[in-house]
Amino acid sequence: MVDDGRRRVVIDKVRPEIDGGRFPIKRVVGETVEVEADVFTDGHDAIVCRLLWRPESQERWREAEMKALPNDLWRAAIPLSEQGRWLYTVVAWVDPFKTWRRDLKKRVDAGQDVALDLRVGAALVRAASERAREAGKAADARVLAGLSDDLEADKDPEVRLLLALDDELALLMDGHADRRFESRYPRELAVVVDRVRALFSSWYEMFPRSCGPEGRHGTFRDCEKRLPYIAGMGFDVLYMPPIHPIGQAFRKGKNNALEAAPDDVGSPWAIGAAEGGHKAILPELGTIEDFRRFRDRAGEFGIELALDIAYQTSPDHPYVREHPEWFRKRPDGTIQYAENPPKKYQDIYPFDFESEGWRALWEELKSVVDHWIGEGVRIFRVDNPHTKPFPFWEWLITEVKREHPDVLFLAEAFTRPKIMYRLAKLGFTQSYNYFPWRNLRWELVEYFTELTRTEVKEFFRPNLWPNTPDILTEPLQIGGRPVFVQRLILAATLGASYGIYGPPFELMESRPRERGSEEYLDSEKYQLRQWDLDRGDSLREMIALVNRIRRENPALQSDHSLRFHEADNEQMLCYSKTAGDNVILVVVNLDANYAQSSWIELDLEALGLEDDQPFQVHDLLTGARYLWHGSRNFVRLDPQQVPAHILRVRRRVRSERDFDYFI
Amino acid sequence: MVDDGRRRVVIDKVRPEIDGGRFPIKRVVGETVEVEADVFTDGHDAIVCRLLWRPESQERWREAEMKALPNDLWRAAIPLSEQGRWLYTVVAWVDPFKTWRRDLKKRVDAGQDVALDLRVGAALVRAASERAREAGKAADARVLAGLSDDLEADKDPEVRLLLALDDELALLMDGHADRRFESRYPRELAVVVDRVRALFSSWYEMFPRSCGPEGRHGTFRDCEKRLPYIAGMGFDVLYMPPIHPIGQAFRKGKNNALEAAPDDVGSPWAIGAAEGGHKAILPELGTIEDFRRFRDRAGEFGIELALDIAYQTSPDHPYVREHPEWFRKRPDGTIQYAENPPKKYQDIYPFDFESEGWRALWEELKSVVDHWIGEGVRIFRVDNPHTKPFPFWEWLITEVKREHPDVLFLAEAFTRPKIMYRLAKLGFTQSYNYFPWRNLRWELVEYFTELTRTEVKEFFRPNLWPNTPDILTEPLQIGGRPVFVQRLILAATLGASYGIYGPPFELMESRPRERGSEEYLDSEKYQLRQWDLDRGDSLREMIALVNRIRRENPALQSDHSLRFHEADNEQMLCYSKTAGDNVILVVVNLDANYAQSSWIELDLEALGLEDDQPFQVHDLLTGARYLWHGSRNFVRLDPQQVPAHILRVRRRVRSERDFDYFI
Repeated sequence: MVDDGRRRVVIDKVRPEIDGGRFPIKRVVGETVEVEADVFTDGHDAIVCRLLWRPESQERWREAEMKALPNDLWRAAIPLSEQGRWLYTVVAWVDPFKTWRRDLKKRVDAGQDVALDLRVGAALVRAASERAREAGKAADARVLAGLSDDLEADKDPEVRLLLALDDELALLMDGHADRRFESRYPRELAVVVDRVRALFSSWYEMFPRSCGPEGRHGTFRDCEKRLPYIAGMGFDVLYMPPIHPIGQAFRKGKNNALEAAPDDVGSPWAIGAAEGGHKAILPELGTIEDFRRFRDRAGEFGIELALDIAYQTSPDHPYVREHPEWFRKRPDGTIQYAENPPKKYQDIYPFDFESEGWRALWEELKSVVDHWIGEGVRIFRVDNPHTKPFPFWEWLITEVKREHPDVLFLAEAFTRPKIMYRLAKLGFTQSYNYFPWRNLRWELVEYFTELTRTEVKEFFRPNLWPNTPDILTEPLQIGGRPVFVQRLILAATLGASYGIYGPPFELMESRPRERGSEEYLDSEKYQLRQWDLDRGDSLREMIALVNRIRRENPALQSDHSLRFHEADNEQMLCYSKTAGDNVILVVVNLDANYAQSSWIELDLEALGLEDDQPFQVHDLLTGARYLWHGSRNFVRLDPQQVPAHILRVRRRVRSERDFDYFI
Repeated sequence: MVDDGRRRVVIDKVRPEIDGGRFPIKRVVGETVEVEADVFTDGHDAIVCRLLWRPESQERWREAEMKALPNDLWRAAIPLSEQGRWLYTVVAWVDPFKTWRRDLKKRVDAGQDVALDLRVGAALVRAASERAREAGKAADARVLAGLSDDLEADKDPEVRLLLALDDELALLMDGHADRRFESRYPRELAVVVDRVRALFSSWYEMFPRSCGPEGRHGTFRDCEKRLPYIAGMGFDVLYMPPIHPIGQAFRKGKNNALEAAPDDVGSPWAIGAAEGGHKAILPELGTIEDFRRFRDRAGEFGIELALDIAYQTSPDHPYVREHPEWFRKRPDGTIQYAENPPKKYQDIYPFDFESEGWRALWEELKSVVDHWIGEGVRIFRVDNPHTKPFPFWEWLITEVKREHPDVLFLAEAFTRPKIMYRLAKLGFTQSYNYFPWRNLRWELVEYFTELTRTEVKEFFRPNLWPNTPDILTEPLQIGGRPVFVQRLILAATLGASYGIYGPPFELMESRPRERGSEEYLDSEKYQLRQWDLDRGDSLREMIALVNRIRRENPALQSDHSLRFHEADNEQMLCYSKTAGDNVILVVVNLDANYAQSSWIELDLEALGLEDDQPFQVHDLLTGARYLWHGSRNFVRLDPQQVPAHILRVRRRVRSERDFDYFI
């Protein structure tokens, strides 16, 4: 027989809840979690339903009344004031006093004699007085005892009825409800609360070694000089590929050549050499002091450094000598290099996560993150996390964030969707995603609807990159400036977080290593490059403008409000984001070659606009203002000018009433 | 650190799964459960995924290989051969041999030297030989050891390669896989397997006391004489309202009058009198021997008796005297009668499930069910389960079915949807539902799509009743014969289980107690009635025909295959059900008054038909045959004739090739 068959309230489907509570959802400080649950009991009794929440580190639950909505749905919101892991759950109980009070009104309305009912109520109030006394609330207990006497006393029935239905009594009874048979949702659900940059961030990726003048290997000192340029474009995260010593064995040459020339610099992802491994700095870049100075200078520009975490080694990495047990051996005694048969990557050794020494390996890998946290780094871009075990990441991220809740991890897992989502669920703060390959309107609408309108939104924060050192998409190769601008605007307005790999992006570098490849020709992955940052056709000013628009418009700083609007012309993509009064409407011409025009059909409700009213839209890219009216409006966009509108919607059109003198 | 970080395979979203595994799904003997799961691992290693299942009462799991489908989806089916509760879950592991074998092929195809790889394989085979030895499979161990030697030996590389890729070796390795790091889905999911009648049943409800001749109180002996009539219509479940002694206190008179006349028989739901309570039989109906004889006679006609379980008492019930602690007392010492303020039901006492004596109450209520199980009853229609606590039902049904898996419970909970579904989840075999109030096409399509195309189908088995003693819907009051026939056909073909309350249904009784009420005038709930079963306009023959069609067509014996098809005329509802080769297409004219015609647009794929091919449809109601072609066909239905087609679709049109002489 069940433990207590008198817990009569059912609490079901508390949400958001990911995979039966297996994983936390994500929020940032200042956001709320709107919690819903299906709550009901047998029969006709009134119930009380409360949301409980607390930081995981504290014992005491906070309680908020949940509101009853139609169809047994209850709702309340949790305000999230601090970083860290919070828990929430729901309790509910049958409330005899609420039931009695509700029914008493009905009986009175029906003209029934309620003498006996008042005595029933008196008993309920007396029991509450008793509970108040036991809880040490002597004052409440006295008041309740007095009210109970009054209800039972032989007074004027009218007066007793007024007392019975008095709101003060109801409030007092609420505070001393009979919760013996309270039901509690069987799971405590978690929400990881990050700092705001987890949600809203503008990334710039750069190879520090290409910052040197005249072909010399760049240093952190050189990078310092690049900071005004990056800050000028409005970025707040600067991500650098690995900055560690690079292996010599099987070093790759320019354009991924199997044989390196003596002066080839190698791939930064072939980590580890005589000079050290994941905690060391490539001597050519400078010293740890140089790194610290660069980090601080970046901070002065409002830029946070993001490091690359690539858990693999070159054959020259100290781990290979010191911890051979962390690598898989072949029958001939050599170490198994990375492979994806028939392809071989002999310059890279993967770790063997099935090693008997896996615990020590996990600890060591965590110590790499801890090392750089010690150096003031709080953002990590993680290379290919999908080729390391999922339990490892869940442990690593949870542990790191327990000690440092301000640390953010970006997952670079270009892989199958369920794997991508799994990594996000188990803790990655942000994720690369399929944006580079979503170019047609239906592709964009379908994908971003999945990301923002399904449960995916609760755990997966997309970071949108039009390009990366590994991804020069075909449209960028052939579309020229209109495609670069279009992809920039899509990334920066569809995504609260986005990034570009520069200077190739702003300089519209478009030459692939070979036809059909997404690799850059003469990629910085294998060689130094010099960039003419002052070229007249650079997109840097357009980028600066877009980033300023992002900073000034809260609507563009989160993703859940994204809504698509219809457009008759299928080359035209139209969507909006809102944050309170801030309403941004974006229209993009996806055709790189021709001007396109279209009627667009706005979902006025999503925009907070009323039917058939005029409203003003202000193009933040060009400064133009248009007076629109109702849901159907006309746009025309020429990719040779600007392929998009970023329109700020002003809900009210100014009239003479807005002027001071009118009053 | 997690327990074993080397369990690298993720097993996610095993389904069907109701509320995170909190509740079982439902099937009947002979059905299968198609289980799907998202299963994947990091990197490129090959994995093996197996479905485990067993009857809950047995320890040993059975295993079946799950099949990999695109997008990391895996699938396998469980055949369900016996009644009772079964469990299922999923395991998976990274398989080094499968990975090695797959990669070896790729290396060979790429023309690489595989000498070292063969040695890697030899080591894998040797380890399997070791496992086989430890498992006591000496023969396998020997064969594997030999093969390992051969792979490593200095033989012809061609021969070694053939050995390596041999299917027999793969099979042997499968049987001795390395499952040390096997992942297991954290939950064991349950399926309750019922006998077939849980899914496919035709119910007839009848008041036994109205079976007497010439106005005399009917007896079980009289009911026996009614059996050929009921069996003749093709019903297989006969449900009787409570057959127990009826209270005298506050007994209701005819048409629910507050005062009963001396000869009024009272409501059968006011259970309990001096003669006994829920385990006794109303003396006017006969003795327990009469009941047993009636039960056996019904069985001879293929009819199973269903009793009513109404957990409430009249004020005269022995429980009131023997167990006053099971009822709520009012301050004046009287017992609280049933109320829904301001309405009072003084002839009924509800149990107080919050009583200190709740455990004894639960046991006693279960003993009522056990008592009637002892008398050979296996089907119970439960009155108003939503006014008793959910934990009670879950316990009761689970306990009863553990001892008697063939017992079926029908929930009569006409209440809010989530409560209705909760009762189904916690164990009710079948459920009354909103069918009586779904009359328009969009209402029917929407509701039955919810019931058959969402997770609801896994736990909620609708039993469709066009009428009950409490429900004479407005269309039945005003629509005449066409509506009765239409509702009969809808119930009998939309639902694998359905029922009618007769004789009022077949005699098209349509007079409500008052305008706007769904109560019958002169309802059998409060008085005896006599019915002229031989009336010429009785629907008994139509009912017999419809039930014969149900018996002869497996498609109509389950619900999950239901699909709706488009019809241009919105008065026309078109849907199909299939079971293997048996394909039934139903078209109903929902207009009670006028003939309607429409083009219908068939989903040929759902019907298993090919595009643009002719096929024959055979109307099982009229015997007519039509040759149809492709997806678009024309129908016309006159409600004054028959308001529906029940068409058997014959996929192939006969041709001369079907005749013997052609061969």
